[in-house]
Amino acid sequence: MAKKQVVVVGGGFGGVYTAMHLEKYLNKADFEITIVNRENYFVYQPMLAEVVGGTIGLLDTVACLNRLAPKTKHYAREVSGINLETKMVEMVPIYTHEYYAIPYDYLVLSLGNVTDFKGAPGLHEHALPFKNLADALKIRNRIIDVLATAATLTDENLRKEFLTFVVGGGGYSGSEVVAELNDLVRKLAKEYKTIDPKEIRVVMVHSKDRLMERELSESLSRYAEKILRKRGVEFKFEQRLDSATNDKAILSNGEVIPSRTVISTVPSSPNPIIEALDLPKEKGKLKTNRFLQVEGHENIFALGDCANIPLDDEGKTCPPTAQFAVREGKACAQNIYNQMIGKEKKPFFFKTLGSMGALGHHNAVGEVFGIKVSGILAWFMWRAIYWYKLPRFTRKIKVAISWFLDFIIPPESVMLKIESSQALAQLHFEKDDIIFHEGDIGDYLYIITEGKVDVLKEKDGKQEKLASLSKGSFFGEMALLNERTRTATIKCTCPTDVLALRKADFGMLVANFKGLKHQFTEVEEQRKHEF
Amino acid sequence: MAKKQVVVVGGGFGGVYTAMHLEKYLNKADFEITIVNRENYFVYQPMLAEVVGGTIGLLDTVACLNRLAPKTKHYAREVSGINLETKMVEMVPIYTHEYYAIPYDYLVLSLGNVTDFKGAPGLHEHALPFKNLADALKIRNRIIDVLATAATLTDENLRKEFLTFVVGGGGYSGSEVVAELNDLVRKLAKEYKTIDPKEIRVVMVHSKDRLMERELSESLSRYAEKILRKRGVEFKFEQRLDSATNDKAILSNGEVIPSRTVISTVPSSPNPIIEALDLPKEKGKLKTNRFLQVEGHENIFALGDCANIPLDDEGKTCPPTAQFAVREGKACAQNIYNQMIGKEKKPFFFKTLGSMGALGHHNAVGEVFGIKVSGILAWFMWRAIYWYKLPRFTRKIKVAISWFLDFIIPPESVMLKIESSQALAQLHFEKDDIIFHEGDIGDYLYIITEGKVDVLKEKDGKQEKLASLSKGSFFGEMALLNERTRTATIKCTCPTDVLALRKADFGMLVANFKGLKHQFTEVEEQRKHEF
Repeated sequence: MAKKQVVVVGGGFGGVYTAMHLEKYLNKADFEITIVNRENYFVYQPMLAEVVGGTIGLLDTVACLNRLAPKTKHYAREVSGINLETKMVEMVPIYTHEYYAIPYDYLVLSLGNVTDFKGAPGLHEHALPFKNLADALKIRNRIIDVLATAATLTDENLRKEFLTFVVGGGGYSGSEVVAELNDLVRKLAKEYKTIDPKEIRVVMVHSKDRLMERELSESLSRYAEKILRKRGVEFKFEQRLDSATNDKAILSNGEVIPSRTVISTVPSSPNPIIEALDLPKEKGKLKTNRFLQVEGHENIFALGDCANIPLDDEGKTCPPTAQFAVREGKACAQNIYNQMIGKEKKPFFFKTLGSMGALGHHNAVGEVFGIKVSGILAWFMWRAIYWYKLPRFTRKIKVAISWFLDFIIPPESVMLKIESSQALAQLHFEKDDIIFHEGDIGDYLYIITEGKVDVLKEKDGKQEKLASLSKGSFFGEMALLNERTRTATIKCTCPTDVLALRKADFGMLVANFKGLKHQFTEVEEQRKHEF
Repeated sequence: MAKKQVVVVGGGFGGVYTAMHLEKYLNKADFEITIVNRENYFVYQPMLAEVVGGTIGLLDTVACLNRLAPKTKHYAREVSGINLETKMVEMVPIYTHEYYAIPYDYLVLSLGNVTDFKGAPGLHEHALPFKNLADALKIRNRIIDVLATAATLTDENLRKEFLTFVVGGGGYSGSEVVAELNDLVRKLAKEYKTIDPKEIRVVMVHSKDRLMERELSESLSRYAEKILRKRGVEFKFEQRLDSATNDKAILSNGEVIPSRTVISTVPSSPNPIIEALDLPKEKGKLKTNRFLQVEGHENIFALGDCANIPLDDEGKTCPPTAQFAVREGKACAQNIYNQMIGKEKKPFFFKTLGSMGALGHHNAVGEVFGIKVSGILAWFMWRAIYWYKLPRFTRKIKVAISWFLDFIIPPESVMLKIESSQALAQLHFEKDDIIFHEGDIGDYLYIITEGKVDVLKEKDGKQEKLASLSKGSFFGEMALLNERTRTATIKCTCPTDVLALRKADFGMLVANFKGLKHQFTEVEEQRKHEF
């Protein structure tokens, strides 16, 4: 009999800890563990703000998934959907044009949530999110870049835009980011003789009347605010980021803040994969019982930020914090095992130990076991606690060294740009190469810039040639326009160069370019009859 | 009187060392130093291959320019051209639509060369270059990615493509890359139970009959080859990479190597900025006299890989190595100072100390002061020499720690992806915002997806409204089609969303899309009369 398949979708705290704990049961029951995550690494979220500040190394906040869970099968891929009927997890094609799907017997959903700027015009386009390692790095690069640019500007108004930084959202991550950003900006600015420290504005916009109101008591909140104010942060309480453009942020009271750097840490919306699932939900989160099973589905478990988990029988639910996700992971692993061997499952319960937030330069605030702490002592505690909780021993060493180096060596302001300079992919094929096969997923539109291709279609088991296309022709638009799979095979009859335009970009162009849409529809009508 | 301006273009070894040495003369003469470089950091090229292998940290090979030359003015910008008549260095616009230009009295050209795949179809599209930090990181990411993907594949032929790695060019950097790549691939593959080490192929393609033939004697060359062969590298001598596609490399003898990872380190062509200059050249390099002055221009100096510098009076020229560039920088600084104060200049001379190449895992080859060295001793020497020559003390500490950590901690295979997911930029503007001004540089084509804009043109000192455009219309194509500046100002009359397509992408689309070109030409004809 085939081994039972446990598939974990999502590699955040919940998913990773589930896999890690499941591995302990591998020698007691006959099953296999698989984890699917877009990146091949786990991000240690609590320290991500330090990447912005440069206090720790770029890769110190991440750990490779296959090191954390060495007995688990890993897929560094994006999930495109989950089929609950066939019990398959489908992944977006990479390198090939085919969906890749794996079967599950037990499914663990820990997809977290996604950054979403719905309802606030311009935020999607111009605000920087703060969620993963790439985001942190982009924020850091932007800061370094605008400072260097500001140093060369003479126009008063332009200087204001470049030297003002706006952070939206005063929860944990927002407060940590604004603290790190403020420290970094003011430290780096000293290297430019042409920048007067008084020109720099760092503005925190928060919808409530105090910082971290869900996590901290009023007095600690105020303490954090005082510390940040002293270091130069301005506060706009009871305001939201209403919209943003390339050069300004607009608040809900209509106030316009000229700025080239707008960061949003405002809580985000459910993952689209979760949204698409026909499973019971509450406020967009998967409704589970106290065993972490999604209601009505005993083989599907959910945890972390995408799950609504009852903490007691009186309607209290688990907060979306790392502290809880880690414990949920352990409980989830145990319950899956118990379910597998027919043992009784345990209801999940955990009492929070407290909470802490770092405030950048040698300062932090928190409440631990009911005791309020702040200042440098809290900062040491913060570091000690999170360092202790860092997964893997070698990572602990690296972070300790980074922190030590930070004491003795000033941070470097290297801008690590890894962007591709061209929006369109240029591809080259040789004679007889197949660009795509009939039945493949349609993910690109192609335009021939050099060479020739044959359009082939299978008929009664034979390849029939429908047409021959040459320079200037495009193909692949049919699958994109109608969201179907490829209706024909494209084979090169000589060395051929093509431009490839991604589906999403093609969609935007067609939706907005009257002439283009018309042209495509016309050609398609014609091809429908021909092909 | 205004201070004399010395402008250094390019931040490689030559440029940076020129600036560093020039700073020593700042208190002796009245001048200012400026350096313009695309990145805000200097790349320590000799250690770049170690980034691929992960032996040293991501940022250990780079140093911030403003730390290296703290008394110099820095521009982290791309140079768009140099005007020899007006004596201005022009930079590509960032954040704004205007060219930024700075004047020079003394110009130092150290732009190196650029990777170029001319004449080899498909290399531009599919081969990975190896020149800067981003390249090294991309190669590393690709290796990690194809291994992870290969581990999930069952198709025999696909597995071959994913597990074969081809490196073109067997000079110094090619040999170092193939050594580091080979070590990394074989080490990482052990983490996947589904990959048999025998499936892995690492192929080095070199046009000559032995490795590093310009740098090393035949016996050392053969030794390096033997070492690499033993570790699993295959050699294809007297062959070139003729072309490449997404899934294969084709050699000059017609041999087809199925591979998803083709790297090219083949020597590259002159920088287009240098090509465009009306200055005396030899084989694409700037011809200088023995004082490093470009022939016939006593205020323009050139050094490094973009210069052809006589080493003696018998026609010998300086080799394009870091060792020379560093010394050239020092000589250049001194000669500029001497020129400034009217002192006699010194002809440049330097006798090479020797050369060394690392071969990955604890091995290297080299000739130092005429003595041949190889094996672990050479490797220690290699490390010691390059470590000693690393700029800045703090960097020395960091690299030493990285090397130490590498001994005790296995490397992580984190894939750091920082790509943007969309090819088209989406922008949001508010009412009365100006999208671009008349006279601005035309760098984007815009399509309105929501909102309305007015097209304004100045006439007799007044803004005249020419047209109003709304959803689905595009604008900005005139400046792109004719490579002129913007002929009108675009102002939003309500909150407006636009798609922006980069000039290069627009050019490709128009050149290859018959329908699109026709549409644009038509609209332009019409607008010419209207506007």
